Amino acid sequence: MKYSTIVIGDELLIGQVTDTLSGWIARHLSPLGWEALSVKVIADDEHEIFQAVDEAFASTDVVLMTGGLGPTKDDITKATLCRYFGGEMVLNEEVKRNVDAMFAKRGLEMNRLTALQAMVPSSCRVIQNEVGTAPIMWFERDGKVLVSMPGVPRETQTMMERAVIPQLLGHFHSDVDIEYRTLVVIDYAESALAEKLEPFEQQLPSYIHLAYLPEHGVIRLRLTGEHSDGKLINDDMERLTAQLHKLLGKSIIASEDKPLPMIVGERLRQLGLTLSTAESCTGGNVAHVITQIAGSSDYFMGSVVSYSNDVKHRVLGVDTDTSETCGAVSQPVVEQMVSGACRVCGTDCAVATTGVAGPGGGTTEKPVGTVWIAARVGNVVVSKCFHFNGSRAQVIDRATTHALIMLLKLLK
Amino acid sequence: MKYSTIVIGDELLIGQVTDTLSGWIARHLSPLGWEALSVKVIADDEHEIFQAVDEAFASTDVVLMTGGLGPTKDDITKATLCRYFGGEMVLNEEVKRNVDAMFAKRGLEMNRLTALQAMVPSSCRVIQNEVGTAPIMWFERDGKVLVSMPGVPRETQTMMERAVIPQLLGHFHSDVDIEYRTLVVIDYAESALAEKLEPFEQQLPSYIHLAYLPEHGVIRLRLTGEHSDGKLINDDMERLTAQLHKLLGKSIIASEDKPLPMIVGERLRQLGLTLSTAESCTGGNVAHVITQIAGSSDYFMGSVVSYSNDVKHRVLGVDTDTSETCGAVSQPVVEQMVSGACRVCGTDCAVATTGVAGPGGGTTEKPVGTVWIAARVGNVVVSKCFHFNGSRAQVIDRATTHALIMLLKLLK
Repeated sequence: MKYSTIVIGDELLIGQVTDTLSGWIARHLSPLGWEALSVKVIADDEHEIFQAVDEAFASTDVVLMTGGLGPTKDDITKATLCRYFGGEMVLNEEVKRNVDAMFAKRGLEMNRLTALQAMVPSSCRVIQNEVGTAPIMWFERDGKVLVSMPGVPRETQTMMERAVIPQLLGHFHSDVDIEYRTLVVIDYAESALAEKLEPFEQQLPSYIHLAYLPEHGVIRLRLTGEHSDGKLINDDMERLTAQLHKLLGKSIIASEDKPLPMIVGERLRQLGLTLSTAESCTGGNVAHVITQIAGSSDYFMGSVVSYSNDVKHRVLGVDTDTSETCGAVSQPVVEQMVSGACRVCGTDCAVATTGVAGPGGGTTEKPVGTVWIAARVGNVVVSKCFHFNGSRAQVIDRATTHALIMLLKLLK
Repeated sequence: MKYSTIVIGDELLIGQVTDTLSGWIARHLSPLGWEALSVKVIADDEHEIFQAVDEAFASTDVVLMTGGLGPTKDDITKATLCRYFGGEMVLNEEVKRNVDAMFAKRGLEMNRLTALQAMVPSSCRVIQNEVGTAPIMWFERDGKVLVSMPGVPRETQTMMERAVIPQLLGHFHSDVDIEYRTLVVIDYAESALAEKLEPFEQQLPSYIHLAYLPEHGVIRLRLTGEHSDGKLINDDMERLTAQLHKLLGKSIIASEDKPLPMIVGERLRQLGLTLSTAESCTGGNVAHVITQIAGSSDYFMGSVVSYSNDVKHRVLGVDTDTSETCGAVSQPVVEQMVSGACRVCGTDCAVATTGVAGPGGGTTEKPVGTVWIAARVGNVVVSKCFHFNGSRAQVIDRATTHALIMLLKLLK
């Protein structure tokens, strides 16, 4: 089953807010065999909304729409959909009760603008929003369905899982099976991996497709199979995945799509080891990505972000003479930092970073992008100097990823 | 001048990668009066690319296209554009020299797939990619322009600034002036702010538009004006901005669009104060967002991420009895943490967080989303308990934002 997503909001078009909701929807519908044909981001504008819905209905039977449902004046989606599908704006008593209850629970008084939330087009069926005030609206025309949902990610995510996805699955059903397999690969540049896998790709059946999704030193290989015979696809996928494992060996660090910090966390948990970090140029980002994983408190104890030399010395015990002789961005300093983290946080393992994230602070000898990274497991310490390209944010991201890869290799 | 953006990539449609490049482009073209009419994300598929280009050309004279230019088999944009605009694929010597030089610089050998990068449609004019191997292609038809650029953000960002934007401005010129003003506001929920500003909105001239861009306790108010008379717009914008300042007073924390950590950083720099953080549930994210700002090492000294109680006690000096009596998520603990951060990192100010980010770890008394936050400036400590809704990532984000807002209010 194919669908189109329409994302409404001036704030997205001018780049002040990034659309992450369409990606969430895709990740949740893909495993059910629902495929996004396109995602179109448009302004809060009646003409644009009409045109986008026309285009989307021309190529798919389902349109999922997010955004443009707030009570403020710049949000016009509801009235526009009323004109598109016909009918008039009517008070929905159930929505009104829901908005009232929501405000009572939060101890707020309902103001006039929020009261407008209870007005909906008579041409839609309302799905109650159990976690917000903007109602979800289900429209149908000529066998096609449009569902309008809020732009607030949490509300739409919650209500898609509770109501919208089950109702879509009930309304439509597809007879093509789609299966995905994702392998997470390190050690290769994209083009080198593509060259290595060329013979493998050439023998793929026509209904199976291989995609490369590179991101900072980690490449996700995704096999997609589409066929009416589910058993055939499943068998093919097993066989092809086994072939890839044989070809790439230990460079495959996970056999399903999961973030690198989760792969590291699972390995630490398996081995019963604890982790800490000592961060200079990454400024806490390594700790942040590790603690984004639920349950990370089982193995992650803490971090010292030593942005100043004084904190490096006083908290992590980095020798002042070493810092002065070799500079803060150096192998001896990063190795003292990684050992300091283990000692201060009482952990078995640690990673440490010190470098020049930029845009200022670079020298001829140590230009912007120079980062020393160290990892320690037990008494073994490894360290390496990297030269990353890109902006400050990119240097921080890349250093973070490579710190985790270095640790993961040491844990093998 | 209006343009359309087309973003190509299966990985974006299935939600494995988030498109941030179209937002970057919008943020950089907006101040020049260039407005995105739509952003359409589509698959690496010839039919979809043809249709998206047709649709985009139907409503705008400029199409900016990103993605689909890698050397691997799933990237087919170049061949598709060759069929769309006519001509044949030819070897571009200058691109070949560029790819050779790029590989030589990195000490890599060029493989066959990468060599394909030098093949381009004869119907385009090539803009050399100075920071990558995929060439940028400029196509023209019937006075309309399509520019195809890589999906790698750094490459497209660098080359847009160096070449594409200047060439677009040279090729077209618009006679409507567009001006933006953004004010960053705290202390209000979106609907309360909208109600307060209703009289203000009602007297806005028809060519000026107000948008609300809320994000976790911070609302960006954006005024957009469009008129052929640049002086008129400019005067109106000055007058309206002054009115908003009068209406909202100290709730306006910045008069241009900048991230909260930058606003906090500028205030600290003004006052000559230094900052540190002590983080439990935010896991280093407060330090991370502070150090995303270039130059933050001037005022930010470091952080202790005390995920375990042991690190809270040993590094930050949190009293073990207090933790046991009140629990780690409590007012006395967060206040000891914030003072510990100042002491350990030798700073004038600090923020601290301790809470239940979820999804596990909640209790009836302290459910998921309960977060104690403290801020300290000199000898003044304030602390408050928050109850955030949402996923683990959202609780972490919200706690981070509110920690920075609490500090900013104390700095006023």
